[in-house]
Amino acid sequence: MTEAVSRPTLEAVAARAGVSRATVSRVVNGGDGVREPLAERVRRAVEELGYVPNQAARSLVTRRHDAVAVVIAEPETRVFTDPFFALQLRGISKELTAHDNQLVLLLTEGRADHARVARYLAGGHVDGALVFSLHLDDPLPGLIHDAGVPTVFGGRPDWGADTRAADPGVVYVDCDNRGGARAAVRHLLDLGRRRVAHITGALDQTSAVDRLDGYRDVMTDVLGEYDPRLVEESDFTPSGGERAMRELLDRCPDVDAVFAANDLTALGALRVLRARGRRVPEDVAVVGFDDMVPVTEQADPPLTTVRQDIEEMGRLMARLLLRGLSGAREGTDTTAGAQEAPPSEVILPTTLIRRASA
Amino acid sequence: MTEAVSRPTLEAVAARAGVSRATVSRVVNGGDGVREPLAERVRRAVEELGYVPNQAARSLVTRRHDAVAVVIAEPETRVFTDPFFALQLRGISKELTAHDNQLVLLLTEGRADHARVARYLAGGHVDGALVFSLHLDDPLPGLIHDAGVPTVFGGRPDWGADTRAADPGVVYVDCDNRGGARAAVRHLLDLGRRRVAHITGALDQTSAVDRLDGYRDVMTDVLGEYDPRLVEESDFTPSGGERAMRELLDRCPDVDAVFAANDLTALGALRVLRARGRRVPEDVAVVGFDDMVPVTEQADPPLTTVRQDIEEMGRLMARLLLRGLSGAREGTDTTAGAQEAPPSEVILPTTLIRRASA
Repeated sequence: MTEAVSRPTLEAVAARAGVSRATVSRVVNGGDGVREPLAERVRRAVEELGYVPNQAARSLVTRRHDAVAVVIAEPETRVFTDPFFALQLRGISKELTAHDNQLVLLLTEGRADHARVARYLAGGHVDGALVFSLHLDDPLPGLIHDAGVPTVFGGRPDWGADTRAADPGVVYVDCDNRGGARAAVRHLLDLGRRRVAHITGALDQTSAVDRLDGYRDVMTDVLGEYDPRLVEESDFTPSGGERAMRELLDRCPDVDAVFAANDLTALGALRVLRARGRRVPEDVAVVGFDDMVPVTEQADPPLTTVRQDIEEMGRLMARLLLRGLSGAREGTDTTAGAQEAPPSEVILPTTLIRRASA
Repeated sequence: MTEAVSRPTLEAVAARAGVSRATVSRVVNGGDGVREPLAERVRRAVEELGYVPNQAARSLVTRRHDAVAVVIAEPETRVFTDPFFALQLRGISKELTAHDNQLVLLLTEGRADHARVARYLAGGHVDGALVFSLHLDDPLPGLIHDAGVPTVFGGRPDWGADTRAADPGVVYVDCDNRGGARAAVRHLLDLGRRRVAHITGALDQTSAVDRLDGYRDVMTDVLGEYDPRLVEESDFTPSGGERAMRELLDRCPDVDAVFAANDLTALGALRVLRARGRRVPEDVAVVGFDDMVPVTEQADPPLTTVRQDIEEMGRLMARLLLRGLSGAREGTDTTAGAQEAPPSEVILPTTLIRRASA
């Protein structure tokens, strides 16, 4: 183990210079109020010992770490199996690196660890946080709010009962989930399909709720009403998509189209349709959401889907946070109405990408 | 944006109590040397303002964060596409969470960012670091050594020209790369194959060098000599495996077996063999390394490989680091010979797993 013992401490410098720790700290951090001969003695001791100032001490003064935390409110197993998160992190990583900021990814095993994450965020180790994949009633936003850490959220937050964090100044980036879902369902109806099913995402997340609303909008608009048995709740995973597709086929054998809440769900549905001998798109047309290339292109058949630019979403989150931080550093007024104020919400557009499945 | 302005500062407490910042800091951190009426005034101000001590200040005194950094010396794109890293992080995450330590994953775009990572590590934000996938001549170990951060390495480090970090007390966890490679090649020779090729990993990593050495050991032992044209350098990726397999088939069309440096490389080789009409294992037998389940089980044909327990490797790295840290905290002598001293190297065994490909 590389031991810390060889590193000269502030105490050692103080002893060498014959001054107090506070005096060393003041000199090292460029503060005033230390007489010149004393300051010179400290600087000489720093040089002789090869002392490197502890950044924790430094940051007490400068309040800058050039580091940004990323918190994905999912267990680490999910973070590493759902390509959505890798794409979002790619955008964040590029943007932070371009500004020489360190990306600090805080991983957890699950919601029980969120208090520890909030402790770390409150601990003065980062300048701000990017938080995404929140679920309803997660204590994290409230804890982060109390910790006073500047934050940009990915996805529209729903605070539920925890109103502490329901700040009107909250900044978030999202895509047009409802509009994208409408385009998907309208496309299926335009193909002449009438028994259009929807496999939802995790309904404790606003993205899933908004996509379900978009489905309902169009089904009601065009058909006057819709059959609630055509909606099956799921969780954004391939296995969840498989389970839901089996349920739908058992309950409504006449289903002729499926709008899946994301591409991974659609892949699960495609597997079940193939296993049950239903041709896609001839018997059942399928549309996904996200456009997770190359998965969507390599699907059998290639998947028609609603594209959102996930990497760009990550990049934008990072950009908004850094802009807000530099505004705060320069003492710019970042409250509503000020020139430099970040917008409280940024909604990215979606596009329907037509491939073979619908 | 959630603003930090509402959070009372140390300065505010000092102003309220009519004392210096240093006095507030001393009281808050439980230090001595502050007279009782003054200390009482500070405590009252803390309570009235609802001041939460900044952990950066606190940690200057306690030197504990209950947080451990993980650094994977690869670009983040690789971290999220090679399942090896996800498995190792799984083991680390489980162990750290069991000890209520926060996993802090420091992502980079590449080696150019390693100085920034070292700065963060030196900044007093974590108690120690787990560092893996080092490449020869990476400045990171030297920088980490200078930062004085207790570290456990994954994989035997090769310092190259940078001898700063070549500390005899360095702790690392690895698997028996050379022994595993020997078992793989011996198995192929036992099957009666004589033109056994090897597709190497990235040869600036010790794992790749050790596996190549194991291949050479057995080929020389059994055949007396080996044909160097049967060795093709690659980089542990599927596309690298494809490229190398094409080279090998062009150069040595009589190749009848391949030992690939890892499973991802073997998958690439399998794809090329299929495309060139070579049957596996009838024409060419293939063995991988790692046993990345379920990829190896789902390969066509299922892949014979050398298993190492990657998740356990991560768990062990975390355990050794935490043990070393708690030894240091309790003032236990952690130098060589002491009871609590972590071993300087832990080598995990490997097992040959036979499936259909060889």
